[in-house]
Amino acid sequence: MPEGVALARDLVSPAIEAAIGRLTPDVRVVAAYHFGFADAEGNPTGGGSGKALRPALALLSARATGAPPERGVTAAVAVELVHNWSLLHDDIMDGDTERRHRPTAWTVFGVGAAILAGDALLALAQDMLLEDGTPQGPWAARCLSAAVQRLIAGQGADLAFEKRDDVTLTECLEMAGNKTAALMACACSIGAVHLGAPPTLAMALAGFGAHVGQAFQLTDDLLGIWGAPEVTGKPVRADLRARKKSLPVVAALTSGTPQAAELRALLIDPQPLSEDDLIRAADLIVAAGGKQWAEREADAELAAANASLADIDLPADVRAELTAIAEFITARQW
Amino acid sequence: MPEGVALARDLVSPAIEAAIGRLTPDVRVVAAYHFGFADAEGNPTGGGSGKALRPALALLSARATGAPPERGVTAAVAVELVHNWSLLHDDIMDGDTERRHRPTAWTVFGVGAAILAGDALLALAQDMLLEDGTPQGPWAARCLSAAVQRLIAGQGADLAFEKRDDVTLTECLEMAGNKTAALMACACSIGAVHLGAPPTLAMALAGFGAHVGQAFQLTDDLLGIWGAPEVTGKPVRADLRARKKSLPVVAALTSGTPQAAELRALLIDPQPLSEDDLIRAADLIVAAGGKQWAEREADAELAAANASLADIDLPADVRAELTAIAEFITARQW
Repeated sequence: MPEGVALARDLVSPAIEAAIGRLTPDVRVVAAYHFGFADAEGNPTGGGSGKALRPALALLSARATGAPPERGVTAAVAVELVHNWSLLHDDIMDGDTERRHRPTAWTVFGVGAAILAGDALLALAQDMLLEDGTPQGPWAARCLSAAVQRLIAGQGADLAFEKRDDVTLTECLEMAGNKTAALMACACSIGAVHLGAPPTLAMALAGFGAHVGQAFQLTDDLLGIWGAPEVTGKPVRADLRARKKSLPVVAALTSGTPQAAELRALLIDPQPLSEDDLIRAADLIVAAGGKQWAEREADAELAAANASLADIDLPADVRAELTAIAEFITARQW
Repeated sequence: MPEGVALARDLVSPAIEAAIGRLTPDVRVVAAYHFGFADAEGNPTGGGSGKALRPALALLSARATGAPPERGVTAAVAVELVHNWSLLHDDIMDGDTERRHRPTAWTVFGVGAAILAGDALLALAQDMLLEDGTPQGPWAARCLSAAVQRLIAGQGADLAFEKRDDVTLTECLEMAGNKTAALMACACSIGAVHLGAPPTLAMALAGFGAHVGQAFQLTDDLLGIWGAPEVTGKPVRADLRARKKSLPVVAALTSGTPQAAELRALLIDPQPLSEDDLIRAADLIVAAGGKQWAEREADAELAAANASLADIDLPADVRAELTAIAEFITARQW
């Protein structure tokens, strides 16, 4: 993991813990559990707050203006609160029972408590950006709420796609753009926006984040099929078993190749998929060009990300750390 | 209904419809249905947007500064969006299947879609207050997010109370203060805050709204037991049938009178309550002083509301309309 991520975690975790400490007690317990700061009874775990990827990017975007990382903490916390609002609510909608190797909040505290905790994080995130009364606070808050509406659009599309079997690759890419890339673009720019960076800098950083986010989603989808279990923490081909319409799958299904029909038949069949079925499905995706398409697309997005930063002035260490994080989260380990 | 409420509806409804028109299509359909602008298929109904009580109060709070009502529309829309975020999410948590004589959104579109629609209204409300870039926008947004956190605290307490049978009257009053009075206080002041009113005016209006909100909840709880079905739209004693721990009930249960124990035994019994049981329970609440306490408390809150405005300069018509709405929503019709 790049050094900047661990440093961000050290800087931002206490601020996240302090932020959720402001919530009403019933809600605070749920949020503290969800972040991993506390167990289900509210006892401190000594850990928590997840991977801190988005906070690391937010701190770098503050540093892109020449400011010290400390001045990006509020923006970093706001982005991470929004990310966790979406996790809390998505886990309910998707019926997911495990997150970060622990039971999801709604399975522990109930659907109602998890809805409320998510709501509280969303409102708190917006409020924190307005709290210091700087003229840029409202701009940062509006960037964040634009990302929130795109996350909602992406999750709405994801729910709708489950009921359809005619999803196009364009729709699928748009969904990933909303569900993953929008908040990544926000993370990569909000620190700069909050500190009053010139629009050219803020927009270049947002462009970088949008491309990194798209590359990240493509990579995540590739790892969901071919990733090594010791890297992904999930069984190999887990996304196929769940019949997830991920990008390589939809690329294969819409490839017009002879393999597309066989893959469609396999994935539509309501019977549980055997190990042989899963291996066959993965092979069909390769043969239909879905894997190669996703790999090329991810590489192109990563190149586009770096190109977004080519023409702007950035402190050399900030540029290097942004690139290191982008490469880290789009590494294909199998 | 006071004239100001109908006028507010005419002014604010189109703005609410325009606001939800900005949402992503999947979410817009759910929001338009929930507000009553459209049926479940998305066809316009020609109606919608509810009673508009809070928008009416928000417009009056803008007029309290001497501004025309049009300048309060953004604040009124923001408050109404937040109110409807809470309705959408509370209906899921409470398992309520009917609202405004129609099936609730989650029963029509699913829990996931209703969670997303609520989230979208919450984020949109905050964003609208920042949109015009006035220096007071962030203050108005922060007043609203403070109310949001109190609504969350109130709903969290309400959920927690369902599992307890030792709820005190103080806790119950605090819950009502959070769940009902906080947003009413916000509605009565946000228009003024958004237009840069002096703090003395904004705070007096917020105080008025907080007391009116508390009186409104006490009245609603009284009507939930003794209200005429043709007024409440619910069967008489509906809250007792649902064993709701409303304020008159908790006042009776914690009265220390001989009737408290019999009432507790009736409400704890897991058997469905017969009509005779319900009549007996209502009589016990009267005998234990719960009804009289709630009536006196509501009257005192209404008096305190009007007292909040006694020492501030207000246009005479604004004062009269605020008082008329306060009296209207705390009228006990049985």
